[in-house]
Amino acid sequence: MQTGNYVIGIDIGGTTTSLGFVDRNGIVRCEATLETLAEQRADTLVSRLSDTIVKLRGNSAISGIGIGAPNANYLRGTVENPPNLNWGASVNLVELFQQHYCVPVAVTNDANAAAIGELQFGIARGMKHVIVITLGTGLGSGIIVNGELLYGADGFAGELGHTTVDPEGRDCACGKRGCLETYVSAAGMCRTVCELLSQNCEPSSMREIRFNEMTSKQIYEAACNEDSIALAAFDITARTLGMKLADAVAHTSPEAIVLSGGLASAGDILLTPTRHYFEEFLFTPYKGKVKLSQSALPEGKGAVLGAAALAWAEVDKMSL
Amino acid sequence: MQTGNYVIGIDIGGTTTSLGFVDRNGIVRCEATLETLAEQRADTLVSRLSDTIVKLRGNSAISGIGIGAPNANYLRGTVENPPNLNWGASVNLVELFQQHYCVPVAVTNDANAAAIGELQFGIARGMKHVIVITLGTGLGSGIIVNGELLYGADGFAGELGHTTVDPEGRDCACGKRGCLETYVSAAGMCRTVCELLSQNCEPSSMREIRFNEMTSKQIYEAACNEDSIALAAFDITARTLGMKLADAVAHTSPEAIVLSGGLASAGDILLTPTRHYFEEFLFTPYKGKVKLSQSALPEGKGAVLGAAALAWAEVDKMSL
Repeated sequence: MQTGNYVIGIDIGGTTTSLGFVDRNGIVRCEATLETLAEQRADTLVSRLSDTIVKLRGNSAISGIGIGAPNANYLRGTVENPPNLNWGASVNLVELFQQHYCVPVAVTNDANAAAIGELQFGIARGMKHVIVITLGTGLGSGIIVNGELLYGADGFAGELGHTTVDPEGRDCACGKRGCLETYVSAAGMCRTVCELLSQNCEPSSMREIRFNEMTSKQIYEAACNEDSIALAAFDITARTLGMKLADAVAHTSPEAIVLSGGLASAGDILLTPTRHYFEEFLFTPYKGKVKLSQSALPEGKGAVLGAAALAWAEVDKMSL
Repeated sequence: MQTGNYVIGIDIGGTTTSLGFVDRNGIVRCEATLETLAEQRADTLVSRLSDTIVKLRGNSAISGIGIGAPNANYLRGTVENPPNLNWGASVNLVELFQQHYCVPVAVTNDANAAAIGELQFGIARGMKHVIVITLGTGLGSGIIVNGELLYGADGFAGELGHTTVDPEGRDCACGKRGCLETYVSAAGMCRTVCELLSQNCEPSSMREIRFNEMTSKQIYEAACNEDSIALAAFDITARTLGMKLADAVAHTSPEAIVLSGGLASAGDILLTPTRHYFEEFLFTPYKGKVKLSQSALPEGKGAVLGAAALAWAEVDKMSL
C-alpha cells in the first residue's frame, strides 16, 4: 500500500458535504463542497464524492479517508437512522468507500469529527475536558473526556441535540418531541421566529419571508437591523442553549465549551446572551469556571480537519 | 505508619451518616449510623464520628479513611456549598479528619462513592460505562467512563440532581429553580404529592399527613394500598426520572444505569414505570440497549463500600 502525504477529510451534513486534502500538520491543500442531496441513497453520495476526489487528486497519493456523518458509529463503521438523511436504518459507509479506495477508512459522528478537529488544530488544543457543539441544520456534539473523544458503550456518546427541552414540545425528525435541536439549530430558529410571529403583533421583516425559504442568515441580518422578532428569536435560542449547556456541564464538567457551525458564526449576537443564560443556569460549583467560546477555525473547516485527524490516526494504526 | 486490615468508609448524607470498617474484599466488619444534624458545623460531625469510631474500633488497625459527602471535591479534599448541609462555602474535610487520624484520608461526592461501590462490589462490576443515581434526600450521581470515575476538569463531574427539568419550576436549595432533585428524590416526591393534593379531589390517605412529616416511605405504603394520589406521584416521578436519564444517556452512552438509595428501594413500583418512560425518551440509537437496574447492594451499603474502595486506593497510592 502506497503511503501519501495527504488524507481526505469528509464532512457530510444534512445540506452540504465538504471534503479536503489535509496533511499531517492540518494544512488543507485543496477542498470542495457539494450538495448532500439528503433524499438520495448513500452510495450515490459516495460515487459523487469519488468523482470529485478524482478531479481534485492530480498526482497526490492518498493515505486514508476520514468521514464525519450524522449518526455515524466509529466502532461499527456505519451510519444508523440519520434524522436528516434518507439513508434508512443502517449504511456501512466504510465498506462503501472501500469499494472505491484501497486505503484505511474511518467514520465518526460529524460533531465528534468537529470535536477532534478542535482538539488537534483548534481552540481546544491541550485541553482534557471539552464539549464541542455544532450548530448547523441540526445540533451535534462531541465530548472530550480525559483528552480523548468519548464513544461510550455503543459508539454513540454525545448526542445532545436529542436531549429533551420540552416533552410536549416540537416534533423532531428523530420521532421524539421537544428535542434540543428543534429549538437550537438553524431550522429550530426559523421555527422560533414562526412561533413569535404567531404570538406577537410587532412589525417585522420576518413576516415577508415564506417559512420554507427562511434561513438563519436572514434572521441574523434582521437582528442586526434591530428587528424585534429576530432579536427575540436569538434571545430565546440563547436561553435554551444556555440551559442545556449548563446541564451538559453537570454531566462531564468540561473546562470549555466550543460552539462551531453555521449558526455559531452569528458571533456575539448569539454568544453574549448564551454566556449570560449559561452562567445563570450553572450549578454553583461550576459558576465562572467554564469557558464558552466560538470556534476559531474557519467555518466548516473544523469537521473536515477532525475527519482528517481521524484518518491520520487510522493510518498510524494500520502501520503498527 | 501501621497498616491494618480495615479502612473506614463513611457516607455523609443530608439526614444520616453511615460508617463501616471494610476489608480488602469489601466485607463490612462492623458499622454504625448516626444523625448528620445538618444545621451543625462540619467539625462537630467529625468529632462525633471520631467518638463512634473509638467505640467500634477495638484493637483493629485502620489503614485509611474514605468519605462520601455532598458536593465533596476529591481533587481538593473539600466539601463546597453543600445544598443540604449548613457548612458554608468550603470545608476541608480531609484536614479535619487528619486532626484525629494519622492515615490517608480521601473524600468524594457521596454519589461518586456509591458509583465506585457499584463498580467494585455491586451490579456494575466489570462494566466500562455506567451511571449510578442515588435517590435519597436529594438526587446524586456518579458517572463511570472507560472503567473509571469521571471527575472532569474541576473534580465536580456528575451532578445530575442539578440539571434543569423546568426553568420556571420548583425552588431548589442550591438557589436555582426546577432542578431534577426537586422532583425526583424523597423530598421531591413529597412536593409532588402536595401538588397533586392541590389539583385533585380524589380521596387519599396522604391528605391526613402534615407536609413537614411526610416521608417517601408513607407515599410508598399508600401506593401499595392503591392510593391514587400516591400512585400518580410515583408515575410523575418515574416520567421525570426516565426523561432525564435518557438525556444522561445522550451524554455519556452508558451500558447500564443503577438506581440506589432509599427511594430506589421502593423497587418495581418506581422501576417499572421509570423503565417505560426511559425507553420512550431514549434517542433511537440507544433504544433497548441500556440496562436500568436497582442496586443489588444492601440499602445504604453502596456508598459506604464505595468510600472504603476510595480509601483502599489511597492506601495503595501512599505505599507506592
